[in-house]
Amino acid sequence: MKWNDLQNEACPVARGLSVIGDRWTMLVLRDCFLGVRRFEQIQERLGITRHVLADRLRKLEAAGVLRREPYQERPLRHEYRLTERGKALYPVMVSMIEWANAHVPPPDESSVTLVSRETGKPIVPVMVDANTGKEITHQTVTALRPK
Amino acid sequence: MKWNDLQNEACPVARGLSVIGDRWTMLVLRDCFLGVRRFEQIQERLGITRHVLADRLRKLEAAGVLRREPYQERPLRHEYRLTERGKALYPVMVSMIEWANAHVPPPDESSVTLVSRETGKPIVPVMVDANTGKEITHQTVTALRPK
Repeated sequence: MKWNDLQNEACPVARGLSVIGDRWTMLVLRDCFLGVRRFEQIQERLGITRHVLADRLRKLEAAGVLRREPYQERPLRHEYRLTERGKALYPVMVSMIEWANAHVPPPDESSVTLVSRETGKPIVPVMVDANTGKEITHQTVTALRPK
Repeated sequence: MKWNDLQNEACPVARGLSVIGDRWTMLVLRDCFLGVRRFEQIQERLGITRHVLADRLRKLEAAGVLRREPYQERPLRHEYRLTERGKALYPVMVSMIEWANAHVPPPDESSVTLVSRETGKPIVPVMVDANTGKEITHQTVTALRPK
């Protein structure tokens, strides 16, 4: 298995990582979900080089996760927006956030948390199977390989 | 923001990536969820160097995600098992699998899928808020920063 060939694997974990597994990529997407859309803003927030950020944005655009949209004509400037495919990554983001808040607390215990817009209360995410309504755990599910 | 300091960030996405964001780490954890527990087996499946795999396993053990357990006395050999903290990563794994199966199909359309052990049917994972019973999307949730 080579990192650059992950997109061709039968394993969906490998294929997922081929798009979002590079360093900084999930943090770029976090900013997109927070409404930060411009190159300079993302670069300033992450403190990474222009080269690395341009590479990650280019790959995410090529993968159909982000699209570029002009926000200024003269000179022409673009911002980056999540596509439907990009927005579909939200459960990955949420499940990582919940795991980190439960298991990787920050030194000063002041972490960003996710709250419901409707109630203002912290969300308690549970992953359920829409077919059965039951919670999905590693014990209720098994991986099926193609024949 | 420096990659090696991510564990100290207020942002849980950053802290999560400090543990699972290194290349190959999620594929190592995939193997652990599949019941592959021995160094040589994981190394053979991933085709990575002993050096890289040893580094990832050491970090995951230090982070409390995996624990080593002896399976043979003479000579002493260990296998790697998920801790409770490690098992709690399952929703991250499932949400990435579902996203990849929907949005990063393999060339030959023969992907591994997740099925319910109870019904044998493909699962349809939905992330709901246990407080409200409603689906969690980027539109129903907002990030709250500590004061």
